[in-house]
Amino acid sequence: MACSHFLRTLPRTRLQSAKPVFSNPARTFSSSRIQAMLTTELSETEVSALRTNKERLASDLHHSCQWGSGIRWGNGPTDTGMQRLALSQDDKSVRDWFIQTMKALKCNVTVDEMGNIFAVRPGRRANVPATFIGSHLDTQPTGGRYDGILGVLAGIEVIKTMNDMGLETEGGVGVVDWTNEEGARFPISMVSSGVWAECIPLAHAHNLKEVPTVASLPTAASAPETMKSALQKIGYLGDVPCSYKSTPMAAHFEVHIEQGPYLVSANQRVGVVTAVQAYRWFRLNVIGRDTHTGTTAFEHRADALYAFAQMMVRAREVAASKGCLASVGIVEAKPGSVNTVPGQVSFSLDIRGPETEQVAEVEKELRTDFDAIAAAEGAGIGKPCRVEWTLDFDSPAVKFHEDCIDCVQQSAQAVVADASVADTKSLVRTIMSGAGHDSVFTSKRVPTSMIFIPCKDGLSHHPEEFSTADDCATGASVILQAVVRYDRKRFL
Amino acid sequence: MACSHFLRTLPRTRLQSAKPVFSNPARTFSSSRIQAMLTTELSETEVSALRTNKERLASDLHHSCQWGSGIRWGNGPTDTGMQRLALSQDDKSVRDWFIQTMKALKCNVTVDEMGNIFAVRPGRRANVPATFIGSHLDTQPTGGRYDGILGVLAGIEVIKTMNDMGLETEGGVGVVDWTNEEGARFPISMVSSGVWAECIPLAHAHNLKEVPTVASLPTAASAPETMKSALQKIGYLGDVPCSYKSTPMAAHFEVHIEQGPYLVSANQRVGVVTAVQAYRWFRLNVIGRDTHTGTTAFEHRADALYAFAQMMVRAREVAASKGCLASVGIVEAKPGSVNTVPGQVSFSLDIRGPETEQVAEVEKELRTDFDAIAAAEGAGIGKPCRVEWTLDFDSPAVKFHEDCIDCVQQSAQAVVADASVADTKSLVRTIMSGAGHDSVFTSKRVPTSMIFIPCKDGLSHHPEEFSTADDCATGASVILQAVVRYDRKRFL
Repeated sequence: MACSHFLRTLPRTRLQSAKPVFSNPARTFSSSRIQAMLTTELSETEVSALRTNKERLASDLHHSCQWGSGIRWGNGPTDTGMQRLALSQDDKSVRDWFIQTMKALKCNVTVDEMGNIFAVRPGRRANVPATFIGSHLDTQPTGGRYDGILGVLAGIEVIKTMNDMGLETEGGVGVVDWTNEEGARFPISMVSSGVWAECIPLAHAHNLKEVPTVASLPTAASAPETMKSALQKIGYLGDVPCSYKSTPMAAHFEVHIEQGPYLVSANQRVGVVTAVQAYRWFRLNVIGRDTHTGTTAFEHRADALYAFAQMMVRAREVAASKGCLASVGIVEAKPGSVNTVPGQVSFSLDIRGPETEQVAEVEKELRTDFDAIAAAEGAGIGKPCRVEWTLDFDSPAVKFHEDCIDCVQQSAQAVVADASVADTKSLVRTIMSGAGHDSVFTSKRVPTSMIFIPCKDGLSHHPEEFSTADDCATGASVILQAVVRYDRKRFL
Repeated sequence: MACSHFLRTLPRTRLQSAKPVFSNPARTFSSSRIQAMLTTELSETEVSALRTNKERLASDLHHSCQWGSGIRWGNGPTDTGMQRLALSQDDKSVRDWFIQTMKALKCNVTVDEMGNIFAVRPGRRANVPATFIGSHLDTQPTGGRYDGILGVLAGIEVIKTMNDMGLETEGGVGVVDWTNEEGARFPISMVSSGVWAECIPLAHAHNLKEVPTVASLPTAASAPETMKSALQKIGYLGDVPCSYKSTPMAAHFEVHIEQGPYLVSANQRVGVVTAVQAYRWFRLNVIGRDTHTGTTAFEHRADALYAFAQMMVRAREVAASKGCLASVGIVEAKPGSVNTVPGQVSFSLDIRGPETEQVAEVEKELRTDFDAIAAAEGAGIGKPCRVEWTLDFDSPAVKFHEDCIDCVQQSAQAVVADASVADTKSLVRTIMSGAGHDSVFTSKRVPTSMIFIPCKDGLSHHPEEFSTADDCATGASVILQAVVRYDRKRFL
């Protein structure tokens, strides 16, 4: 294992120089070099030695989190969560910074009709699509500093590393910030990669109204805003059509925190993501009858909130019995008065499972059970509750592309070879993603895969979401190599 | 039963004249009479013959509902509910109308520091407190046309009837509109009669903030308003101290829809309210942990909303087992995103029962059970949910005053004697109130009782809340007689 041994000597070099490292001593880096190195001319060993700059990545990441910093959970300067809802003023600020940064790195920047920002570092060959690194800069209302943000910042770090090294690629390398991946403000997640993939109609996305439950946050106007008007308001309604036809990609890679406990609890460093679990999002309405809490016996009530409570308890039972998840994130009860039994309840239901069919089974069983729960509440007065389902989003299980998975697998093994353990192979595992990501939609049109790194306690969508600078740098180095390997796969 | 027979002939007379009726042919009514009749000079038969004007009461009631008319449920001109939140612009309009009306009826009007409006028709004797008829003009956000409104409008109708007849009382007769009885906008119900009774401190009431869940209604500003600022904004922050010492009463009578099904299902006409059940209002917070819905297994969650759902189901079980009620009217889950497990849930809990001790027992058992539910959710990760209780309001069971109950009982029997059934006594029953009313607080300081009339299906706090014009007029006639009887009890 000469390669591993060679690589394991690298961290010292990197610490000494505090610069991006290219391991082949025959090719020393100079910022003034005119004749660039070319990916297709590298040896396998040279590719495996590629690393990004840990300190710079961490510094850039936290720099970008000044816009929309959220709930404080510790005393350190970066011990806050994030609340950077899509198309908020804070989102505009970080977008402006992203574009400025990428232009300074000699990238060509375009913005499409969904506000997706594409920054491309040209390759040697014109007229071939770039290989993209992408994720999102928006966050949950009480989110953290890594979900999505790391993916974009890792892309910036890859471009900086390539520029510093003078590493030329055959095809270009792009970094993309996808709009409103979270679906927290405009209630379809990954909506803008969805439009790009032509899986979601542009008009439907543009007409999405912001969710009223975030109306108390600084981003929201008193009247719910549409996604189009929000794009216009911050100057990010671009003129490039939002489509994979107008902005083609050779491939799409995404590095992301795992958001689950598997890597961290097994002391593993990298997850090679091979698939994404299926999920469906519903909006349900339970219609009962407003009555007085003090004068209406239980048997005379059609209490929509009581029906909801039973439904939520039942949803977990059914999902658990089938190896799936079912979750309620939003609930609204009307009219919302202490002494009035709520006659109307609206809630979100998120069902997930490893296979599309399992999710469908959970849905089917819950439809039957919820009808029964609704029918029982208010039956005593002949005015039972009823329940209505609306499917907001359907994401079947996704299998990523073998070529991309291979690139990530090789790169992950090469990067973890730095680690001081006997069996570095065991630090890498294949894994399924529990969450949806923009890569789900890019995978519909171009070869795609993802890289997971550990996060503390598997915690995500929470201010205390945390990954170490080492783990972030590992993810960035893996995606750097994966992009280089993919470029070589295309043109060697 | 000469009296009953005599009275049963009255409806025809009333229909013919369409005027307020005084049954003693020896005393004919003339609006130009200078020398007034006096309550203490009437015979028992004459008192029993007093009736209000059904058509005028109905007309006035619906006229007053033009301000704040709500959800339409039928095609008729009055087939809408009400949404007249306390101290809204609509509430201001109806208050202005009320004052104008009472002044035109030669009443003296005062407004206190809580915006309570007292309109007094002077009696023959100066320097004795008036007997009051009171209720409230505010409504639930999706309320109806009768709850509270009937009580005030019945008061107006009593004054109109007395004026028309030239009936003089020994003590004065007042009509009071109590502010924010519903507690729907400012979250303490009967807050302003509570301040008047010196059971709630003025400053506490003035600092109450409007409930955020009604922020979408036309009454609410973008930032929650305090009760004091809302009073100022509509010009109803009066300068009379809000206290039974500054605005004394001889007694307080209130006519109200039952808001339950007992009268209507037994075909009874009048409920003589002898008591009000105990209740306590709590605000509970469940604190869990925000996590990602897609990547967090059930055993890794501290889902505050799931804990809430179990609590609500349990609350009904426990309350039902003890002959009590437990209800949740308000629930808020944060952060409120489809794909984030809510880490924080806030909800209202309203526990009621016939006796104060029963309510305390339900509370005690639920405190234990809720702790157990919270401890189980998140136990798998050593970060269980926890639950915090805040008591917002505590209303022990109330027994009304025997003198007032007697007056209502006699008056009710006299009025239902009009009915064409054999046993008119069976049309009246004693009853306990399930809901709180301003009479709960007045009963702390002055003799008080209430009169219930039937409402359709027992439905209340709902746009379709409905009572017939006949039933409304029955209630108004009972309260007219009760006030006269009480005046006689005081001065005969």
